[in-house]
Amino acid sequence: MVDQKFFKNSGKLTCEEICNLANADCQSDVCDTVFTDVAPLSKATPSDISFLDNVKYKQDLIDTKAGACFVKEEFIDLVPKTTIALVSQSPYRSYALTARAFYPEPSFDRKVEKTAVVSDTAKIGKGCFIGHYVVIGDDAVIGDNAVIESNTVIGDAVVIGDNCRIQSNVTLSHCEIGENTRIYPGCRIGQDGFGFAMDPTGFVKVPQLGRVIIGKNCEIGANTCIDRGAGPDTVIGSGSWIDNLVQVGHNVKTGSNCVVVSQTGIAGSSELGDFVVLGGQAGIAGHLKIGSGTQVAAKSGVMNDLTGGETYMGSPAMPRRQFLKQTAWLRKMSKKN
Amino acid sequence: MVDQKFFKNSGKLTCEEICNLANADCQSDVCDTVFTDVAPLSKATPSDISFLDNVKYKQDLIDTKAGACFVKEEFIDLVPKTTIALVSQSPYRSYALTARAFYPEPSFDRKVEKTAVVSDTAKIGKGCFIGHYVVIGDDAVIGDNAVIESNTVIGDAVVIGDNCRIQSNVTLSHCEIGENTRIYPGCRIGQDGFGFAMDPTGFVKVPQLGRVIIGKNCEIGANTCIDRGAGPDTVIGSGSWIDNLVQVGHNVKTGSNCVVVSQTGIAGSSELGDFVVLGGQAGIAGHLKIGSGTQVAAKSGVMNDLTGGETYMGSPAMPRRQFLKQTAWLRKMSKKN
Amino acid sequence: MVDQKFFKNSGKLTCEEICNLANADCQSDVCDTVFTDVAPLSKATPSDISFLDNVKYKQDLIDTKAGACFVKEEFIDLVPKTTIALVSQSPYRSYALTARAFYPEPSFDRKVEKTAVVSDTAKIGKGCFIGHYVVIGDDAVIGDNAVIESNTVIGDAVVIGDNCRIQSNVTLSHCEIGENTRIYPGCRIGQDGFGFAMDPTGFVKVPQLGRVIIGKNCEIGANTCIDRGAGPDTVIGSGSWIDNLVQVGHNVKTGSNCVVVSQTGIAGSSELGDFVVLGGQAGIAGHLKIGSGTQVAAKSGVMNDLTGGETYMGSPAMPRRQFLKQTAWLRKMSKKN
Repeated sequence: MVDQKFFKNSGKLTCEEICNLANADCQSDVCDTVFTDVAPLSKATPSDISFLDNVKYKQDLIDTKAGACFVKEEFIDLVPKTTIALVSQSPYRSYALTARAFYPEPSFDRKVEKTAVVSDTAKIGKGCFIGHYVVIGDDAVIGDNAVIESNTVIGDAVVIGDNCRIQSNVTLSHCEIGENTRIYPGCRIGQDGFGFAMDPTGFVKVPQLGRVIIGKNCEIGANTCIDRGAGPDTVIGSGSWIDNLVQVGHNVKTGSNCVVVSQTGIAGSSELGDFVVLGGQAGIAGHLKIGSGTQVAAKSGVMNDLTGGETYMGSPAMPRRQFLKQTAWLRKMSKKN
Repeated sequence: MVDQKFFKNSGKLTCEEICNLANADCQSDVCDTVFTDVAPLSKATPSDISFLDNVKYKQDLIDTKAGACFVKEEFIDLVPKTTIALVSQSPYRSYALTARAFYPEPSFDRKVEKTAVVSDTAKIGKGCFIGHYVVIGDDAVIGDNAVIESNTVIGDAVVIGDNCRIQSNVTLSHCEIGENTRIYPGCRIGQDGFGFAMDPTGFVKVPQLGRVIIGKNCEIGANTCIDRGAGPDTVIGSGSWIDNLVQVGHNVKTGSNCVVVSQTGIAGSSELGDFVVLGGQAGIAGHLKIGSGTQVAAKSGVMNDLTGGETYMGSPAMPRRQFLKQTAWLRKMSKKN
Repeated sequence: MVDQKFFKNSGKLTCEEICNLANADCQSDVCDTVFTDVAPLSKATPSDISFLDNVKYKQDLIDTKAGACFVKEEFIDLVPKTTIALVSQSPYRSYALTARAFYPEPSFDRKVEKTAVVSDTAKIGKGCFIGHYVVIGDDAVIGDNAVIESNTVIGDAVVIGDNCRIQSNVTLSHCEIGENTRIYPGCRIGQDGFGFAMDPTGFVKVPQLGRVIIGKNCEIGANTCIDRGAGPDTVIGSGSWIDNLVQVGHNVKTGSNCVVVSQTGIAGSSELGDFVVLGGQAGIAGHLKIGSGTQVAAKSGVMNDLTGGETYMGSPAMPRRQFLKQTAWLRKMSKKN
């Protein structure tokens, strides 16, 4: 299934090893059975581990040929006799951990390619990989075991934490990035925010004197743009996941563990609490406060502060239930008339 | 008209040569008249070929000084006496073919620039151009006559078909690209999809073990992002045109000859049939099936499966007629009240 | 406040010097007081200059410890005795000019890095900085004092005006850029527009034979894409500010001093007058005329010509007042029923 040209399988794991790393309980006596790969239920073979996360795929479980399968306790009875049931409170999470064990993140040689241009005043940590045609500016600090891939440009004084991976064709300036964070190809971080004062003869640029501060364990998607602050900093909280082609304006602050789906925009100076989820193509107007745990549906346009913990939809955004009611009412009425 | 600094005119063509390549019928006895360029009706001179595609420009046809003009049969009588009518079933297509004959795609020297870093285990086809500061990884395969422009990064084991053109500052990984496909500047293909399992303490990344498979004769626009599959592949069907700044999530599959206009997003695992057209800034939610021939208007948000062959508008998307009716009704009612 | 690692403070300025450059009137007899920095009201110290632009922050003014503060005449009485009032018609503009004096744009060495590949036939002006791994094509013309940062690719015959700054990882082709214009990282300018003729067997590409012409004093944001014209040129008027991730289709023309906020798309052949403002994630359909002074709210979808001077909202876009009325009416009615 998995194309071994692109992904290197790291070898065998016993059922017991898998249950330990995946936080699951083996329902078999034969815990030394050996597995070699992961696969979806419908394609798995006896040497594969699979999982059931969505009840929609119940029939696939009944028919599966997988050697073992992560399931919630309530579905044990559906597991065929030839498949070992591995009971997990979160089968998808267990699958993720198992897949990671079979297919660890790629490793990089610990070296600085000769074609990289690294300033004499930059500090490069131990065990780093610096790729071809990377340019690293004065006084930049790169943490231990960091990876900087080809053709990426790191500006003066930028700080990158330990174990970060900065992929290819990225541009970073005026920013500090926490450890274990990953920046995807083509990402732009730290450029000037969009700030100008009006003038009858045109616009006067306002110097953007803040930074971008990104926490640890974040993922920042391909071609996403995060502008630096105008005076305050732009801040992305630890553990946050930002998808591709997202725009984050100057002075924005997100809490920890936020999820921002592709093509969403957060306008200048808005602040998100923790565990906020913004669906794809959503827009958050400027200077708003979005409380922790807020969920904003795809394509919504948020124009007001949101207190947190609820789901919003529509443009202008409103509570989900109200949006669905309004949409249904409008459809009904306009058909009648 | 055309700036010869940027575009090199390849020379003269007779009316007969043009009719042959453009699939048109010359309505004149003087088929050996020579033409040197293409131009819009209002700016054309006697040595130019023009076309009428949109009835809106009828008056321009009547007034034109073009030496010849592609028209549908029904408009022959509007063509001035000094202009040769070239009857075509598709004047715009005929124009395209003629313009291509006068201005062929730029040619590239068949060489690998010395500044390119090509892995010893990569295979480079015959007649390729590999530009400055290109980086090509281990076991990559580049087809014959392919062009890879400056500062592009091609990951390990990537496969690029014959006659592909990969423009500058592109990042490719974990993908296979069919012949004669063109990738525009800044495109990101093959990076990890946005996949994680929830956890009370944060998110667990789910390894993305699929690829991106792009067919032949495709165009993929500038700064567009196509994530690789999570397990299944992400697939773009042959002959599809994807515009700039589009997001294609993991496991998405498009049929052949789809058109995806700028800034549209297709969320994970959705599948498009053949000849589907998505207008600009449209959004397709995840796990949907969009039937062949579906047209989705700009800015629409599709939240349900669509059977195909119809046009949809609005967010949530509905049949075009219903959207227009609903919009008109709402405008009328809210004005009254 | 300002991180001196990233921003170099250029030294001291007297109150008089500041008033001169910022077009403000000092309300104190001690015009030789010396200042060293700018800061927001709430964080300013006696050596800082601050400003009040938004009445919301009135209390901050009353409590400020700033040494001096730009205010409108009507707020003089709120300025504490320990703060010098600097009366300005536009305090934010005055602040911008002062901040620029303390923190001028970074300067670049006047040199061509040895790793840059510059065609023998390109003309590089006096005092330019050309960064590492820049590639400049045949017959390109780079104006005096221009800055081209690392890993940027400039195509054949491109013309860049004096004092332009083209940041890193940019791709330019088929374009001419006026003086003093700035192009942000990852910007793509001049690639083929999205033009094809339909055909039962697929699509025929229409050669894109126009250029992109950008005026002087423009800013073009990170990862923004501006396609070249199909025959006519794509034109961005002088003094226009375009934010990140914006799509500008082929043949679009904007007047002078337009503002286009992030993630907005302007479809092919639409024309904007002067001082048009498009909010974030707005969409302008193709072939429209948008009059001077038009303001389009974020997320709006414009499907018709707009005469100018008014504000529009919604998708389809309508006058702002109508949109707000319609939205309120719909909310009220759907709640009742």
